[in-house]
Amino acid sequence: MSATAGLIVIGNEVLSGKVVDEHTPFFVRELRDLGVELKKVSMIPDDVDTIGREVAAFSAAFDVVFTTGGVGPTHDDVTMEGVARAFGVPVVRNREIEVLLVSHSPGETTGAQLRMADIPEGATLLKPDSIVFPIIVVRNVYVLPGVPSTARRKFLAIRERFRGQAFSLVVLYLSKGESAIAERLAKTAREYPDVAIGSYPRYDDVEYKVKVTVESRNADRTRAAATALETLLEDSIVRIEGPGPG
Amino acid sequence: MSATAGLIVIGNEVLSGKVVDEHTPFFVRELRDLGVELKKVSMIPDDVDTIGREVAAFSAAFDVVFTTGGVGPTHDDVTMEGVARAFGVPVVRNREIEVLLVSHSPGETTGAQLRMADIPEGATLLKPDSIVFPIIVVRNVYVLPGVPSTARRKFLAIRERFRGQAFSLVVLYLSKGESAIAERLAKTAREYPDVAIGSYPRYDDVEYKVKVTVESRNADRTRAAATALETLLEDSIVRIEGPGPG
Repeated sequence: MSATAGLIVIGNEVLSGKVVDEHTPFFVRELRDLGVELKKVSMIPDDVDTIGREVAAFSAAFDVVFTTGGVGPTHDDVTMEGVARAFGVPVVRNREIEVLLVSHSPGETTGAQLRMADIPEGATLLKPDSIVFPIIVVRNVYVLPGVPSTARRKFLAIRERFRGQAFSLVVLYLSKGESAIAERLAKTAREYPDVAIGSYPRYDDVEYKVKVTVESRNADRTRAAATALETLLEDSIVRIEGPGPG
Repeated sequence: MSATAGLIVIGNEVLSGKVVDEHTPFFVRELRDLGVELKKVSMIPDDVDTIGREVAAFSAAFDVVFTTGGVGPTHDDVTMEGVARAFGVPVVRNREIEVLLVSHSPGETTGAQLRMADIPEGATLLKPDSIVFPIIVVRNVYVLPGVPSTARRKFLAIRERFRGQAFSLVVLYLSKGESAIAERLAKTAREYPDVAIGSYPRYDDVEYKVKVTVESRNADRTRAAATALETLLEDSIVRIEGPGPG
């Protein structure tokens, strides 16, 4: 499986700088390691319409979608309504979660807290052993909380279900600038259309001027493209890393 | 002016974790300080169609749009084509930038380098004193480079043109959890619909359990909503910050 993924980070607090987004770096790293191609990240506010539109678009475009944020008991937690709207289903009270909430805080459960049992109709509950509250999945959308440590714990409990074919990566560090090498890179990119060749200049590094990345899910093809580039760029190679996991 | 903004971070390297995104934290902080409301951030790959669709949607939805990345001389730099596609205009060689490029590297200008003079038809060039290469603007879209230090320098050279009405913010740190306070927050949010009230739990802080933010562009309204909340939440206030800039 060569899956694609999208991440939707929900919360006014991220866009307004009250909370630093820890979700994106985590998912970038984890999905990479799993061989899942992260195709898009969106950060959007706690607004039902916006969430609905974004979830619908992501769900149609990518194999799996993760959302973070907006699932607590307060008035600004509207992710469940947004996900429900994306799929045109109502939000319904889930009896199993309701029982969990009540047993978790016996005698203290408020109406607000019970809102956390309201989920999109047709949602699936995932219950890996290591976590107390289930993970809510609607079609291909995994709805995770906004508190980073909790979101991480939930994702890590189910991460192996997403594992695919690993990326292989070779990195070339070059002593010449992008303009000097651009035509040779373009030639190799044309000859190896199945291999992703990236070029990233640095202006503040004494060792190199450009980092060129060569990557695909096929280790032989990655190696072949990297060897072709090594030959073409012989005059400017400072150092080569890999092949190794991407 | 109470402007809204969107940020599009373009580049496979960010989504695949080869480069850490430094643009989002920078723009979150800068726009906040300027009183501009950042409504959405997207991270997307170096793909002309994807860039075209995203830029078109952002340009229609927000007052100003910033893009970063994909403007160098290599084959994976396709942002100009993407922005042109968003507005249905061709990419044309700009004579002024061409002259700048040639004078910058006399006798060494390659065809690849001259690609950096190809910009969407109808683009405006901004030339603040402090920068050498102009900033390219297409309608309400400011096209900035992917190298963070260069993008920052360019943005800082024009930042004052975006300054609007500042946000005012009060933060309440509470000793009770979200479920216990949710109904009181919701009541205040209903009574002050023009004031944004946010609630952010922490599970790893000894000082407080929830941080509540009260915010608007009208300092009197922010203060009034904060005072109402202080009264309602008297039993659980640990500390109050502000009113201050948001």
